[in-house]
Amino acid sequence: MPDKSLRMRRAGGASPVKRPVMLAIAGDSAAGKTTMTRGLVEALGPERCVSLCTDDYHRYDREERKDKPFTALHPDCNHLEIMEQHLQLLATGAPVLKPVYDHSTGQLVRPELVEPAEFVIVEGLFPLWSKLSRACFDVSVFLDPPEEIRRGWKVARDTTKRGYTEEKVLAELELREPESAAHIRPQRANADLVVRFAPIEGRDDPEDTPLSATVMMRPTIDHPDLTEVLAPGLSRAMHLELERDHDGRPAESLHVHGYVPREESLAVEKAIWTALGEPDTATPDCLGRLGDTRSEPLAIAQLLLLYHLTDAAR
Amino acid sequence: MPDKSLRMRRAGGASPVKRPVMLAIAGDSAAGKTTMTRGLVEALGPERCVSLCTDDYHRYDREERKDKPFTALHPDCNHLEIMEQHLQLLATGAPVLKPVYDHSTGQLVRPELVEPAEFVIVEGLFPLWSKLSRACFDVSVFLDPPEEIRRGWKVARDTTKRGYTEEKVLAELELREPESAAHIRPQRANADLVVRFAPIEGRDDPEDTPLSATVMMRPTIDHPDLTEVLAPGLSRAMHLELERDHDGRPAESLHVHGYVPREESLAVEKAIWTALGEPDTATPDCLGRLGDTRSEPLAIAQLLLLYHLTDAAR
Repeated sequence: MPDKSLRMRRAGGASPVKRPVMLAIAGDSAAGKTTMTRGLVEALGPERCVSLCTDDYHRYDREERKDKPFTALHPDCNHLEIMEQHLQLLATGAPVLKPVYDHSTGQLVRPELVEPAEFVIVEGLFPLWSKLSRACFDVSVFLDPPEEIRRGWKVARDTTKRGYTEEKVLAELELREPESAAHIRPQRANADLVVRFAPIEGRDDPEDTPLSATVMMRPTIDHPDLTEVLAPGLSRAMHLELERDHDGRPAESLHVHGYVPREESLAVEKAIWTALGEPDTATPDCLGRLGDTRSEPLAIAQLLLLYHLTDAAR
Repeated sequence: MPDKSLRMRRAGGASPVKRPVMLAIAGDSAAGKTTMTRGLVEALGPERCVSLCTDDYHRYDREERKDKPFTALHPDCNHLEIMEQHLQLLATGAPVLKPVYDHSTGQLVRPELVEPAEFVIVEGLFPLWSKLSRACFDVSVFLDPPEEIRRGWKVARDTTKRGYTEEKVLAELELREPESAAHIRPQRANADLVVRFAPIEGRDDPEDTPLSATVMMRPTIDHPDLTEVLAPGLSRAMHLELERDHDGRPAESLHVHGYVPREESLAVEKAIWTALGEPDTATPDCLGRLGDTRSEPLAIAQLLLLYHLTDAAR
């Protein structure tokens, strides 16, 4: 039937479609994906962005999962082939009718139309799962908080917003651990950036000090040059280090301490913004927002992603 | 981003996918699409077929439609762009996560995975709607009963299976008429076959005589040669005529009267089956089934479609 393929291609129309810039924000449950996304969408402008969550591709609802020998973190528990298909469609500028998983009820409900905007942000457990899904993204980040931090975040969220008891959340975390290790955490190796929010060991900062961030920048994409603004000795609260990742691969790591003074972090933000060729506009002040408080490490991590999104759109 | 397109294509994998044979059964509501489909699926074997209905692509549920200035027969009331996308995917051997419209409640519910089988039968209001959707099919048929016949079928079905009152069905039919004329009936011009079940005017057949059928075969695909078995004078109950369609285009029409004796229709069935090169196997006896009764005209129409499906699969 090669004639049919040809007919389909020809009937597909010739109007050139604008392709969106696609960002993957991968990480385990409650790793901070939605917080990261929120600041980016606000900075870019909600009308220029579409964000979606791959949790919607759950194959079974909460009730059905009870009988299954795996959790929602297992590939077989998700329509990953359909997720890949939808990512490809969005990446080529086509709309998709996306399934919808309702976290408050645990049910799969009526799907919704998603039309690609200038920027498509895909967060979830599986965006970097396969070679094909990875090929759909221009930039990718993996959120990698220490497990005890993530556990605290998950308990806080699931007991308030998703109607679980703390006991149930902790039991679920334990059940999920082997599948997280087998299927979610390996995606860390395929991200352009790995962001880890954590307290600094050995320091005794006041309780309201934001977490510090380590932003590993892999040479899989071109990052802004920060060697000058972060030359050794210039800042005590931020530094740049050439490191080896767990697997020995080289990467550059930007360390931003939670107690960094605003002036110092502003200098780095300015350097990133200037590298983008936009030295005259101020950096968006919605970055770094954490509820009512502000986190300089979060702001810098978000600005780096913003840099890559803006750069890829050119 | 041409590099990204290339990465996506390369990551798409090289495993050649078997493409299904696709049949469109188009027609207005209650035109007999499901009855036609049922016999074909049984004849081919349910394990070799997938059938789906484009009603599932309704954009609004029954409640939402009440406020809309159009009915379900209007293109704007349906996700036709997504329908086209899914038809293309199925035609190229890919699965889709198909939306689901529940006719009994009028609600849009959880979507379902559809994986293409050897034969994909798509029935509904819109399968031949656009050049792109038409390009996805190997064979297409439009069911075109006279309006008064269809009205009777629709009242009978919707009052028993879909919980409407007769009054409501008739009011809905009236409301839909202009949109049927504008959007559904024009698809008739794009089908390879047009099948019309109707009583023969001027005859006074017993009440349980099946409706006669006129099967218009357009030269858009190659039909089996029936000129010999239906040479003039051989049968009073069946004949073949060279005709002009409403728009003047030439077509061949096979007329099968409802009272045709089984022996005569068997001769035609045999000729169709032989043209397929399968003279030794009996024609499937599940064809022509209408509840507990049998209709020779329906059996012959279904066998013609079966001929085309089998032929296209070679």
